[in-house]
Amino acid sequence: MILLLHPGQMGAAVGAALVGNGHDTGWVAAGRSAATQARAAAAGLHGFETLASGLRAADMAMSICPPDAALELARQVRREGFRGVYVDGNAVAPETARAIAALFGARYVDGGIIGPPPRWRVAGPSHTRFYLAGAGAADVAALFADSPVDARTLAGDAAAASALKMCFAAYTKGVSALLLGIRALAERNGVTDDLLAEWRISQRELPNRSTAVATSTGPKAWRFAGEMRQIAATFAAAGLPSGFHEGAAEIYQRMAGLKDLAEIGIDDALRSILDTGAGGGETADNEDAGR
Amino acid sequence: MILLLHPGQMGAAVGAALVGNGHDTGWVAAGRSAATQARAAAAGLHGFETLASGLRAADMAMSICPPDAALELARQVRREGFRGVYVDGNAVAPETARAIAALFGARYVDGGIIGPPPRWRVAGPSHTRFYLAGAGAADVAALFADSPVDARTLAGDAAAASALKMCFAAYTKGVSALLLGIRALAERNGVTDDLLAEWRISQRELPNRSTAVATSTGPKAWRFAGEMRQIAATFAAAGLPSGFHEGAAEIYQRMAGLKDLAEIGIDDALRSILDTGAGGGETADNEDAGR
Repeated sequence: MILLLHPGQMGAAVGAALVGNGHDTGWVAAGRSAATQARAAAAGLHGFETLASGLRAADMAMSICPPDAALELARQVRREGFRGVYVDGNAVAPETARAIAALFGARYVDGGIIGPPPRWRVAGPSHTRFYLAGAGAADVAALFADSPVDARTLAGDAAAASALKMCFAAYTKGVSALLLGIRALAERNGVTDDLLAEWRISQRELPNRSTAVATSTGPKAWRFAGEMRQIAATFAAAGLPSGFHEGAAEIYQRMAGLKDLAEIGIDDALRSILDTGAGGGETADNEDAGR
Repeated sequence: MILLLHPGQMGAAVGAALVGNGHDTGWVAAGRSAATQARAAAAGLHGFETLASGLRAADMAMSICPPDAALELARQVRREGFRGVYVDGNAVAPETARAIAALFGARYVDGGIIGPPPRWRVAGPSHTRFYLAGAGAADVAALFADSPVDARTLAGDAAAASALKMCFAAYTKGVSALLLGIRALAERNGVTDDLLAEWRISQRELPNRSTAVATSTGPKAWRFAGEMRQIAATFAAAGLPSGFHEGAAEIYQRMAGLKDLAEIGIDDALRSILDTGAGGGETADNEDAGR
């Protein structure tokens, strides 16, 4: 049995891929929201009352949770005396991955997910790649054969999947935060119309793109902040400047209060970024998903 | 007479636009390189021995120099008792622009140049916009009528052109530095081939683009570092995170030693970024240009 910890939208979709391939897959339902309960049921996951009971029944634990929570979750699993394979699929720094690997030794498999939550019955190739590294990577990848999860093993070291995910998200989510920061900067300096006019001449995609990222990142910003901190730590550990993603973390942190809003536009995002009193806390539950 | 201070490639090209429009335009030749002398002569600028003699003959001074040098140059001009119009066309923070404006009062015109050095006799519309703000902006713009410089006045405050330039370069040069930083991060973590393979799937332009920016930014990185510091100051003054461009400044600073190399490839750039012992100092002379 594979125990998923703790499935949000992405985790539930990965779980559905495992269930669709005939793998018994569980999760720990205690204390999770009604929306998460419904999603887990739809994915065909069976619930356990406690982490301890789930781990007793599992020979593999697969962690898909907010990056800030990944290390503490791994420690909880270790404290329960879990003896199976531990897969961390989170957007964490290689240093965080190595700290988790140290808890499980050769039973650790490093993972990194790139793309949207996978879906069965969508025509064409999969758009969700689950990169895996470590001694047991090929065995984990085999679980997803012919599923909507395109699992790929990496030849690199035991943190290679995490390193790849950090490099990838450093660009996509870093640039989105930068665009929002620049829109806020233009607003503060009274040159928004001038900037949009110049962009229409020389950077034609940016007026629409900088507006669209407010809508696409707004609901997820609370979670992106933690991911940006992991990326900043990755740069620092490599002797490279961490400032890009410290800045990105700050932008997303200020937007964290947008999590529960229905339709988020550029004005909402700019207000949250420019009003430093706003922001909002992080939450422990992983309601959310798109990567 | 318009005195250009101190023309590099961009300044000489702007000077040629003025000369082509029949405006007497000079520069201060003392202490500049042979390449700069040749460029100024080709542009039709006539040389003065000293800053003092040039300013005595001028009713307008136009500063086009590296951003780090802009404020000190303005102070030199002020110390000479210059009574004409002072145009700062540099990539400086609005705060820097306001400090320069304070030296010249209503005679200050704020400028920001976006695009490549302008060229006469190129078919089609101009690709170089010279944004101008302040009381005398329209008079300065008129000097460039029907020239390859597309001069445009802004309705905003006395630092609006500088603010616009900062917002614009925050994206273009910020993203270039981020791409180089990510390539360095992937290299350090041994996942370069994996990242390029993932980018070929999902971010198809990035493998080539991240390689091309090494070649395009390498020779100019020494100057970009100062511009990134001006942008970081602009973010900080607006109460926004300055980290993005502190990081970008550090990347370009480490690449400063590439200035005199002929053909710069991605390997040269990555070596300079990853070898923190490298770097190299800035130079005061503005040999260079593309914006």
